[in-house]
Amino acid sequence: MTTTHIDLVTVTTQASVYFDGKCISHGITLADGTKKSVGVVLPATLTFNTGAPEIMECVAGSCDYKLAGSDVWLTSKPGERFSIPGNSSFEIRVTEPYHYICHFG
Amino acid sequence: MTTTHIDLVTVTTQASVYFDGKCISHGITLADGTKKSVGVVLPATLTFNTGAPEIMECVAGSCDYKLAGSDVWLTSKPGERFSIPGNSSFEIRVTEPYHYICHFG
Repeated sequence: MTTTHIDLVTVTTQASVYFDGKCISHGITLADGTKKSVGVVLPATLTFNTGAPEIMECVAGSCDYKLAGSDVWLTSKPGERFSIPGNSSFEIRVTEPYHYICHFG
Repeated sequence: MTTTHIDLVTVTTQASVYFDGKCISHGITLADGTKKSVGVVLPATLTFNTGAPEIMECVAGSCDYKLAGSDVWLTSKPGERFSIPGNSSFEIRVTEPYHYICHFG
């Protein structure tokens, strides 16, 4: 089940631009105060660091990812999620734009 | 006055990716049904075509733009807007990421 829309949010109009634009996201705040972001990773291989734990939910496209300390690349497709611990990192390898929701905490 | 946030919107989680990722936007729908988008243009010179008339509101960064039929490049900065007629086009020249709200109609 893919999350195509999120209702009743406040959207931050300025995007976050990472890796020279290979990753672009917009922050959203839900009615209960929960913060998430919606974004896209363009074709590239990148390493992301986490502060808070994150759950990456794929809404379109796909990615391969490898968590810190793992040697295994896994694939994430629409409707699928993967979790990254806090204060950690993951590599992501994208060949078609990977559209995601990032859930924190 | 820069619009930093828009409240009570439904956000489309899949981004629109234009020009190989030089422009990325997310669609939003306001409580009254009005559709807008929030997006960013990365450094590039691009030509956009309009269907409906559009108003481009800069929320961060800046751009130079030139409307179809004009020879004049103008600059748009945070808090400023410019209008593009329907079924027309404009060129946009960006040297630092240009963050915008696109208002339709």
